Amino acid sequence: MQRRKFLRTTGVGSAAVAVSAAVAAPAIAQSMPELKWRMTSSFPKSLDTLFGGAEYLAKVVSEATDKKFEIKVFAAGEIVPGLQVVDAVQNGTVEMGQTASYYYYGKDPTFAFGTTVPFGLNTRQMNAWMRFGGGENLLNEFYKGYKLYGMAAGNTGCQMGGWFRKEINTVDDLKGLKIRIGGLAGQVMAKLGAVPQQIAGGDIYPALEKGTIDAAEWVGPYDDQKLGFNKIAPHYYYPGWWEGTAAIHAFIGLDKWNALPKGYQEILRAACAAANSWMVGKYDAQNPKALRELVAGGTKLHPFSPAIMEASFKAANEIYADIMAKNANFKKVYESMTSFRKDEVLWFRVAENTYDNFMAHQSASNKL
Amino acid sequence: MQRRKFLRTTGVGSAAVAVSAAVAAPAIAQSMPELKWRMTSSFPKSLDTLFGGAEYLAKVVSEATDKKFEIKVFAAGEIVPGLQVVDAVQNGTVEMGQTASYYYYGKDPTFAFGTTVPFGLNTRQMNAWMRFGGGENLLNEFYKGYKLYGMAAGNTGCQMGGWFRKEINTVDDLKGLKIRIGGLAGQVMAKLGAVPQQIAGGDIYPALEKGTIDAAEWVGPYDDQKLGFNKIAPHYYYPGWWEGTAAIHAFIGLDKWNALPKGYQEILRAACAAANSWMVGKYDAQNPKALRELVAGGTKLHPFSPAIMEASFKAANEIYADIMAKNANFKKVYESMTSFRKDEVLWFRVAENTYDNFMAHQSASNKL
Repeated sequence: MQRRKFLRTTGVGSAAVAVSAAVAAPAIAQSMPELKWRMTSSFPKSLDTLFGGAEYLAKVVSEATDKKFEIKVFAAGEIVPGLQVVDAVQNGTVEMGQTASYYYYGKDPTFAFGTTVPFGLNTRQMNAWMRFGGGENLLNEFYKGYKLYGMAAGNTGCQMGGWFRKEINTVDDLKGLKIRIGGLAGQVMAKLGAVPQQIAGGDIYPALEKGTIDAAEWVGPYDDQKLGFNKIAPHYYYPGWWEGTAAIHAFIGLDKWNALPKGYQEILRAACAAANSWMVGKYDAQNPKALRELVAGGTKLHPFSPAIMEASFKAANEIYADIMAKNANFKKVYESMTSFRKDEVLWFRVAENTYDNFMAHQSASNKL
Repeated sequence: MQRRKFLRTTGVGSAAVAVSAAVAAPAIAQSMPELKWRMTSSFPKSLDTLFGGAEYLAKVVSEATDKKFEIKVFAAGEIVPGLQVVDAVQNGTVEMGQTASYYYYGKDPTFAFGTTVPFGLNTRQMNAWMRFGGGENLLNEFYKGYKLYGMAAGNTGCQMGGWFRKEINTVDDLKGLKIRIGGLAGQVMAKLGAVPQQIAGGDIYPALEKGTIDAAEWVGPYDDQKLGFNKIAPHYYYPGWWEGTAAIHAFIGLDKWNALPKGYQEILRAACAAANSWMVGKYDAQNPKALRELVAGGTKLHPFSPAIMEASFKAANEIYADIMAKNANFKKVYESMTSFRKDEVLWFRVAENTYDNFMAHQSASNKL
C-alpha cells in the first residue's frame, strides 16, 4: 500500500462551513456547537475497509453528538486528489483528512513513521508506541510544522509482500526486477538491485499484465483479490517486511483541532480509537476467505527466503543511517521507535509469539 | 488471572441516582440528560492497568459529554465484592460493572468466552471475532438471560503461565501439583493430574511461600512483579495457554442500556473501544521493563514443553466436548469461536506470524 495515485480531479470545492446554530442554553451552545466538517480520504470507495474506516469514524462522531458534529466524507479525487490529503488539510481546504502519513514521505521521510517503516513495529506494538511510547506526541510535534494534528484511525495489519510473475528465490533474483513499490521500501529494494516503480493503483494491473513491471505490492488478500492480480502473477509472497503494520491517520487542521470544544476533541479521539480497531478487525475477518479463494484459484504462496529477509533488513538499516545523518526529525522518531521495538519484540517473544506459534502448529497439523 | 477473590465487604450502597437536570432546550434535555452512574470493578486500585481501564472509560464518557454523563468508578470491595460485579449489575445495584466475564463461569461456562478459553483466540483475533465474527452478538444474546449488555473494554494480551517452585519438564511433573488456577483452565489441569486451587489474589503469596501450593498463575510480568511471586518461586513459565487473550468487559444493566439515548450508547461504545486499546497498549508498554527486572533478579523463564502444550490442548478439547454435550449455549458460542479461530490462525500463519518470527529472530541475534 505504498504511494499510489488515485483518480485525480483538479476541482477543489469551497472551504467547508462551520456554523454554530441556535441552541437555547448558552453553555451548551459553547460546548456543543453545530459543526459541519469535510474529511477527504486517500482511498476510493471500492476499498471498503480503508475508505469504510473514514465513514465509520464520521458515523461515530455524528451519533455521539446527536448529529451536532457532522463530518462529510469524500473519496479520493472527489474534491481532493488521493495523495494531496495532507496539503488540503494544511491549507484549510478541508478540516480533516483520512490518509496514510507515509504518502507524504517526499515532503519529509519522518512522515513514514505514522504509518510504518520497513522492519518496524507490528500492529499491537504500533498502538502501544503511539499511545504509551511517546509516538503520538513525537509525531504531533513534527506535524505541527505542517499545521496538522494527527491520530491513528485504522490499520490494515501486516501486509503481504505482493505479486510476482516469476519466483524469487535468491537476492540475485531481485536484480533488475521492476517492482511497483514506493517510499522507504522502494529505497531498500533499489539497494538490493531492484528497480522500484511508482505506479497508480488503477494502472498496476495493465503494467503487470503487459510485463512493463515484474511485480507489484498492494495490501493483502482481501484488497488484492479485488484488483485481480492473481490472474496475471501467480506468485504471492509474504510477509510485506516493509509493512509489519500499516496505520491509517486522521489528520485535522491544527487550528481547527485547537478550536474544538474539549468534549468534541474527546469524541474525535475515541472515534479514531474505535475506527482503528474496527478497520483491523474487518481486515482480519475478511482476509482468510479471500486468501482461501486465491489459493483455490491457483495462487502460489511463498515466504521470502531467509537470505532475502536478512539482506533487506541490512539494507533498511543502512538507509536509516543515511537519512538520520541528514534529518534530525527522522533521527528523533527513529530512535524512539527502535528503542520501543527492542523492548516490545523481546517481550512478545515470550508469551505472545510462543502462543501464536503453538496455535499455528495446530493449524498446520489440521487440529483446529 | 482466573477467578480470584478480592477484599469482600458486605455493605452495598444505595442504588445510584440518575437525574435528568434542568437543561434549557427540551430537544437537548432528551438527547443529553444528566446521568450519574456507578460502575463497580472486579479489580483493586493497585492493579493500575486493569482498574485504570475503568477509570479511563469513565473519563472518556465524562469528557465526551461535557460532564453530563458521569460514571463514578468503585474498586473491588468498595461497594460490591470483586467477584459479584455481574450480580450487582443484574440486580440494578449499580448501572454498570467492569469485570472479566469468565469469573461467572460458575453460573454458566458460556460466560468464559467473553474473556478467553484455553487455546482460544489471540487478542487481535478476539477483537475481530467480537466485532465481525458474530461474537459480540452471540454473547449479548446469552447475556440477555442475565439482563446484561456487554462490550469488550480492555485486554491484558496473552498472559504468562505462572510461577512454579520446581521445574515442570514433563506431563508427569504436573501430577499432584497444587496450582492456583480456576475455571476451564483448572479443569484442564485437573485432567492432567494437577490439583487446581481457588485462592484469592491476596492469599496467593503466603500459600506459595508456605508450600500450601506449588504454583500459581496471575497475569504477566507487570502485575505479577507487584505481588512479588519471584521472591518465592523461581520458575516463570509461558505461555498461559489458557489465556491467549484476556478481554475485560463492561457490563451494563440491559434496561439501563436500552433506555440510554442513542448518542450516549455510541459514546459508551466508542469509550469501550478506546479503553480496550488503551489497556492492552499500557500492558504492552509496561511488561518489558518488568520482565527485564524479574530476569535480572534471578527469575528463570521457561516455555512449557511441547508435550505439556499438546497434552493440555488435547485435554481442553475433551472438556469442551463434555460441556457441549450438556450446554447448548456453550456449544453455539464455542462453534462460532472455533470456526473463526480456524480461519484466523490460517491467515495469521502467513503474513503476521512470519513477520513476528523474523523480528523475534533479529531480537534473539541482538540486531534490534
